[in-house]
Amino acid sequence: MSPLPAAIVDALRTVLGDGPAPLHEPRFQGNEQRYVQDCIASTFVSSVGAYVDRFEQQLADYTGARRAVAVVNGTAALQVALRLAGVQSGDEVLIPALSFVATANAVHYLGAVPHFADSAEATLGLDPAPLRDWLKGIAEPAGGGYRHRHTGRRLSALVPMHTFGHPCDLDGLLSLAHDYRLTLVEDAAESLGSRYHGRHTGTFGRLGILSFNGNKTITTGGGGAILTDDERLADHAKHLTTTAKRQHRWEYVHDEIGYNFRMPNLNAALGCAQLEQLPDFLASKRRLTVRYLDAFARLESVRLIQEPPGCESNYWLQTLILDEAVADQRDAVLTVTNDAGLMTRPAWTLMHRLAPYRDCPRAPLPVAESLVRRIINLPSSAGLA
Amino acid sequence: MSPLPAAIVDALRTVLGDGPAPLHEPRFQGNEQRYVQDCIASTFVSSVGAYVDRFEQQLADYTGARRAVAVVNGTAALQVALRLAGVQSGDEVLIPALSFVATANAVHYLGAVPHFADSAEATLGLDPAPLRDWLKGIAEPAGGGYRHRHTGRRLSALVPMHTFGHPCDLDGLLSLAHDYRLTLVEDAAESLGSRYHGRHTGTFGRLGILSFNGNKTITTGGGGAILTDDERLADHAKHLTTTAKRQHRWEYVHDEIGYNFRMPNLNAALGCAQLEQLPDFLASKRRLTVRYLDAFARLESVRLIQEPPGCESNYWLQTLILDEAVADQRDAVLTVTNDAGLMTRPAWTLMHRLAPYRDCPRAPLPVAESLVRRIINLPSSAGLA
Ligand SMILES: Cc1ncc(COP(=O)(O)O)c(C=O)c1O
Ligand SMILES: Cc1ncc(COP(=O)(O)O)c(C=O)c1O
Repeated sequence: MSPLPAAIVDALRTVLGDGPAPLHEPRFQGNEQRYVQDCIASTFVSSVGAYVDRFEQQLADYTGARRAVAVVNGTAALQVALRLAGVQSGDEVLIPALSFVATANAVHYLGAVPHFADSAEATLGLDPAPLRDWLKGIAEPAGGGYRHRHTGRRLSALVPMHTFGHPCDLDGLLSLAHDYRLTLVEDAAESLGSRYHGRHTGTFGRLGILSFNGNKTITTGGGGAILTDDERLADHAKHLTTTAKRQHRWEYVHDEIGYNFRMPNLNAALGCAQLEQLPDFLASKRRLTVRYLDAFARLESVRLIQEPPGCESNYWLQTLILDEAVADQRDAVLTVTNDAGLMTRPAWTLMHRLAPYRDCPRAPLPVAESLVRRIINLPSSAGLA
Repeated sequence: MSPLPAAIVDALRTVLGDGPAPLHEPRFQGNEQRYVQDCIASTFVSSVGAYVDRFEQQLADYTGARRAVAVVNGTAALQVALRLAGVQSGDEVLIPALSFVATANAVHYLGAVPHFADSAEATLGLDPAPLRDWLKGIAEPAGGGYRHRHTGRRLSALVPMHTFGHPCDLDGLLSLAHDYRLTLVEDAAESLGSRYHGRHTGTFGRLGILSFNGNKTITTGGGGAILTDDERLADHAKHLTTTAKRQHRWEYVHDEIGYNFRMPNLNAALGCAQLEQLPDFLASKRRLTVRYLDAFARLESVRLIQEPPGCESNYWLQTLILDEAVADQRDAVLTVTNDAGLMTRPAWTLMHRLAPYRDCPRAPLPVAESLVRRIINLPSSAGLA
């Protein structure tokens, strides 16, 4: 075993002890059983029910968004948010190349084309400076907005993503979005509990989205939410996600193409209990960060990612970055840690390297290319510290 | 109050008693609480878990399909089933005008165009005879299959739907699909438990789909399943509904455009318990049919729908048909019954009358037009008799 992988296993063991550790495991030690039992007893497990309303209200209260609309998952939330942001078939939407595939999929489902941009080393999220340079070169004014001069497609939206929970440079991106008439939609799937200058991520764009997948900071089994301060957009989100059926005592009239994307009440019941515990989860995750920082302090050539200045991160996934000089040991580290039962994983494959998105437009991606060679996510569950 | 509506209220009261009655309410008197509690205690509430595997196996065993793939809802199931059936952007897909909007939406999500066909009075589902005449007129051979000679679009699939649980004429439709090289995909969202010549609906086409929405015969909160006898298609369905991620110890490679459509384990836990009770639910629904038949026997000008010859229906929604002569009293019946707390509803608005589908191609729809004027669904929950 080469020294670095072994040293990383040792460091992890000082924090995690001898047993195995999953990457991110949910924790149900609050009212989960009670609320879910109550939900089943009420027979309202499906599309209508008090827990959905309550979960939406709790989310709005917690994030400070005027409205939250609970849906079936984060991917569906992003698809609908982009549609509400005005993204149309044939548009291009700027998204980070370094993201989970769902960000691109949501764009694709609308018949639009993802256009990949680079990340900043400091935030792991979209870097506004090189993106501004890139747009200067490829964007030309058209119809009150901008289009990509080589593809002729309208550039309609910008989707920052807060990688592993760390807020990206929203000020820079908002200014860029303003200058290029791009609607900003935040993919805050990973950043429930993360704040940028005190304000919750997902509430800076015209719309934002959250995910409550099983591997996220809180879970509803599967689930997501759309956040917005615009009441009209929120009502429209509700309409679109409930098959666009008009309210009527008995008539079935659907006035546009909608989706069956509402969150079932059963899942919302779990969500209500989970959200009550979010402050505890966040505190535990911050304690874990402190312990990992300590454990990895001794190791040269690796660095634990910390929240960017002015930000409060939820530390959803703890992340180690290898120096370029040892990047070639990434797979050895992954092998040795996973063999030891300590679940780690690399960043996602960059989007433009995936077969279905290979031919999409993209800016130069030097930082993202470097980051994916060097990122290793560590066991991160709440309750580990 | 005019005589017919009052008489219908009286007839309903003899069956349902004095209280209010919802249209269709789920029933959780088996292992629901136990399985869901166990699921939460296991912490596997999300994308992987034993209940999903078990639910899929139970569904396969019950329906006789070789494989069942559990997904987030029936709409998602149909979208994926159609994609697996080879439906491509720009194709036309033949579906009944008399269906829930989800049937058309699933076609639309793939970039294909629904093409509406008429129903049979006897089954409420697609009528093969007039559809054959229609295709004789508008279909022309092209590329090994057929295309619509006026739109130029390929006719790629045929989607029968078993309305309110009553199996439609599958023999006639299978023969039509064969002759016109249409892939048959069954929308069996409403017909879990319904059989055609002894074989379960949803297992006749290349693929079939089920729904476990809150208003269906069994529920998972929200949920659906894809049925198929083709192992390769089932594996592909699993792949597409789990973001098309290739199996790898840590790498994130998605080799085609997939979806986050898997059913959470939490919802599958509920489904396992519900499926155990399906035989009881079906027996109760048949008893209710007998009681409604008796109650409405006295009333001229209305008729309770019964299962078509050679079929066993799940009697998902009990359905009264008004004679044409009294069709103008439909809204009065709906008003009076709903005012009395006895929830009834009409059929869906025919699809070609909905704004988003107004301009889609369609065959003449005289029977569907007549049926929607005359159909009234009655309180149908299991446990009412
Ligand atoms: C960045 C990002 N966007 C979108 C999603 C989609 O969320 P979900 O899995 O709930 O569909 C996820 C999480 O999986 C994600 O990490
Ligand atoms: C005929 C038909 N097709 C498809 C669906 C879609 O199922 P789901 O509501 O689970 O998405 C339904 C049920 O709502 C239906 O009745």
